[in-house]
Amino acid sequence: MYLKELMKDVEKYLDSEVTLHGWVRNHRRQKDFGFIAFSDGTQFQTLQLVYDQETDGFLEISSIRVGACIEVVGILQKSIGSGQEYEFKIHSCKILGDCPEDYPLQPKQHSNEFLRSIAYLRPRANLFQAVFRIRSLAAMAIHTYFQERGYVYAHTPLITTADCEGEDQMFKVTTFDMEHVPMTDGRVDYSKDLFRKPAFITGSGQLQGEAFATAFSRIYTFGPTFRTENSNTKTHANEFWMIEPEIAFCDLEGVMDIQEDMLKFIVTYILKHAHDELVFLDKFVEKGLLDKLNRLVSSTFTRISHEEVITILKNAEKKWEFEPAYGEDIAKEHEKFITEYFDGPVFITDWPKDIKAWYMKVNEDGKTVAAVDLEIPGVGELMGGSQREEDYDKLMKRIDEMNVDKESIDWYCNLRKFGTCVHSGFGLGFERLLIYLTGVENIRDVIPFPRTPGSCEF
Amino acid sequence: MYLKELMKDVEKYLDSEVTLHGWVRNHRRQKDFGFIAFSDGTQFQTLQLVYDQETDGFLEISSIRVGACIEVVGILQKSIGSGQEYEFKIHSCKILGDCPEDYPLQPKQHSNEFLRSIAYLRPRANLFQAVFRIRSLAAMAIHTYFQERGYVYAHTPLITTADCEGEDQMFKVTTFDMEHVPMTDGRVDYSKDLFRKPAFITGSGQLQGEAFATAFSRIYTFGPTFRTENSNTKTHANEFWMIEPEIAFCDLEGVMDIQEDMLKFIVTYILKHAHDELVFLDKFVEKGLLDKLNRLVSSTFTRISHEEVITILKNAEKKWEFEPAYGEDIAKEHEKFITEYFDGPVFITDWPKDIKAWYMKVNEDGKTVAAVDLEIPGVGELMGGSQREEDYDKLMKRIDEMNVDKESIDWYCNLRKFGTCVHSGFGLGFERLLIYLTGVENIRDVIPFPRTPGSCEF
Repeated sequence: MYLKELMKDVEKYLDSEVTLHGWVRNHRRQKDFGFIAFSDGTQFQTLQLVYDQETDGFLEISSIRVGACIEVVGILQKSIGSGQEYEFKIHSCKILGDCPEDYPLQPKQHSNEFLRSIAYLRPRANLFQAVFRIRSLAAMAIHTYFQERGYVYAHTPLITTADCEGEDQMFKVTTFDMEHVPMTDGRVDYSKDLFRKPAFITGSGQLQGEAFATAFSRIYTFGPTFRTENSNTKTHANEFWMIEPEIAFCDLEGVMDIQEDMLKFIVTYILKHAHDELVFLDKFVEKGLLDKLNRLVSSTFTRISHEEVITILKNAEKKWEFEPAYGEDIAKEHEKFITEYFDGPVFITDWPKDIKAWYMKVNEDGKTVAAVDLEIPGVGELMGGSQREEDYDKLMKRIDEMNVDKESIDWYCNLRKFGTCVHSGFGLGFERLLIYLTGVENIRDVIPFPRTPGSCEF
Repeated sequence: MYLKELMKDVEKYLDSEVTLHGWVRNHRRQKDFGFIAFSDGTQFQTLQLVYDQETDGFLEISSIRVGACIEVVGILQKSIGSGQEYEFKIHSCKILGDCPEDYPLQPKQHSNEFLRSIAYLRPRANLFQAVFRIRSLAAMAIHTYFQERGYVYAHTPLITTADCEGEDQMFKVTTFDMEHVPMTDGRVDYSKDLFRKPAFITGSGQLQGEAFATAFSRIYTFGPTFRTENSNTKTHANEFWMIEPEIAFCDLEGVMDIQEDMLKFIVTYILKHAHDELVFLDKFVEKGLLDKLNRLVSSTFTRISHEEVITILKNAEKKWEFEPAYGEDIAKEHEKFITEYFDGPVFITDWPKDIKAWYMKVNEDGKTVAAVDLEIPGVGELMGGSQREEDYDKLMKRIDEMNVDKESIDWYCNLRKFGTCVHSGFGLGFERLLIYLTGVENIRDVIPFPRTPGSCEF
């Protein structure tokens, strides 16, 4: 049976013989007895297996190496020692899969850089047992939040010829033999490729999501997205997952309500379902993590315009690396200041239109757009959303102003011709959420097999 | 408010004035009164709005066109007419987004081919309101099934340099300018591409899923996969979603238990949560759909070996297009016969090793592998699974025999060196499941924006 089943029903199994399968995470041997830290990965806590000279096959058991896969028969009992409530007395033990002495994942402190080099083994390490279980639970929290509220989960396409982020940031996909790309008159002959036109893997499902929102009112996407950015920072990866809800009959205020409610729901869910994992992360990764998450749930989210933020920044008695300016973007140092100033999450609304995307609704002032970024203490921007321009003529004007390629998105514009409606949406980078939830700093450590420039292993 | 909220709490809202936003799906006008079939897409059933000459703005309301987006204020009341339990009496109505006379989605019978050509509008049609809501619910059913049982959801990478399906079926991804692919000595110089090596978008997450199964015991993937197949059939698409569970300490029998249990869970979930949608599909798409699904839940799944299947086929008094033969694959006509023969789902096990994949465990006979295909009446193969070869030496032998490229999967093989264990998994094509659940025949009609050869619109 699996460890999780055993521990869930402790009272039932206590002192009865059961069989477990799993791996040796650690092994402390004494002359006359030994302790094995055992895990099958179905729960965060390992189980302490105990044996002594009376145990069948004492010598064989005491020679079992870290990493080995074993089958143990024995009984769960109240622990005599300190440090754990229960322990497992081995009656017999069999090695199912041995592990050599040079197993890379020895029970000692490894650097995260080293663990990335063995990404196929690192899920067995404590840190990644915690991070990837939280990743799984956070995904479920998101699905639960939206499905309970009647949102339709829309699988928007990955391969696309239209994109709201701009083609220069997108990977091309092709079936061509790269050594012999077919050319006609010096140009690539895409009529010979599978889709008969240039195709990309998407950076966003928003455009198609909007089409679904005009049919189901409330929808969300949750899938992989891609950027070609050649940048080696802690926060950039070339492949990452995004959640993009889109809601008809919802304005900017409404979308902020949803963002706040959703984030509190996710954090509450993780606090409930990943207690052991959070305690570990709080101890070894981010001191105060549990406190941070608990405070988020009961915090008030400030709502303030970009213009007001700039005024606050300008009035602050602080020497800025980047001088805050009306009509311009804000820097990381400003984000940090403003969440500290309000001592909590801050929605910054109504951004200068020139630094935001073409599909956002221009406000009546003609200078700003109905966009919102959510700034979270210690993380910075966690989500970005906007009310979409629902007026056909105004949208076309923006598309012309911003030189967006019209041809591939004519269908998107047409949504404004056929029963257009006020609608809004936002994007949540799943990995940025996980960095917040786990305290882990590097995006490479919250993605099972990260893809970054020069790195596409496993 | 949204329609779903109103109808969920009918008793509370009956006879009180409320405001709704949504679209006009149909409009029947009489001289003195009219009926509007109204939907905001939050439930399958439309709401009948009624108005008459007493209603404020009678003339304006009676001129509202199909497809328009409206705001209506009025009261929900018990319907006097037949055909519906409730109707909504309009007090006032405002057009939020008008819709022209030439709106392509008029309320009449459209061919599925035509609807594909307006894929950005078709989610508003009844058929796709049903199909895509079931798609969303089925996804949730799958997450619920696995998460309730403690499986970890693993986001395996999309961009990959390793693949278990073979590179010739995979899309290449690149950041190169396709007109000027950098060459060195007549070969593509991949050191200049973002990942510094040839990269693809994946056809399966199984290999990385196995790595996770040796850490968490029970995991599942659920994400998009890709094939370059240039084939225009009802069952092929170049982009589709797959679920790939992988379970440690589980053999072929165990994996069949899980497949059967999971499928019954999903069908039960859909029967419960998509009743109106199924009734519609039963009436207009597949007669007997509801009965088929209800029978599945209580049916017994037969388990039989490939060899026994061939014997049954050979003994059948039937003229085959393809003669059944020991050691060879079976054809669609055989699949059909065998599910009819057993009058229910059939697990076919222990396939000839030469027609199956390299990672499957070779049985003791040396001729067959521990693989299983699940055949479902009326659909054919719905899932394929296998016990994986967990022995390093045996795996390497198969890899050599079948000329698999070793280099990119050395890490995968190493899983057999470090505490190897018996493990099994299976793949479920999400679209094939949806074809089964909805009765819709063409894969293009269960994918929001399908990608097939020559077709990558929207």
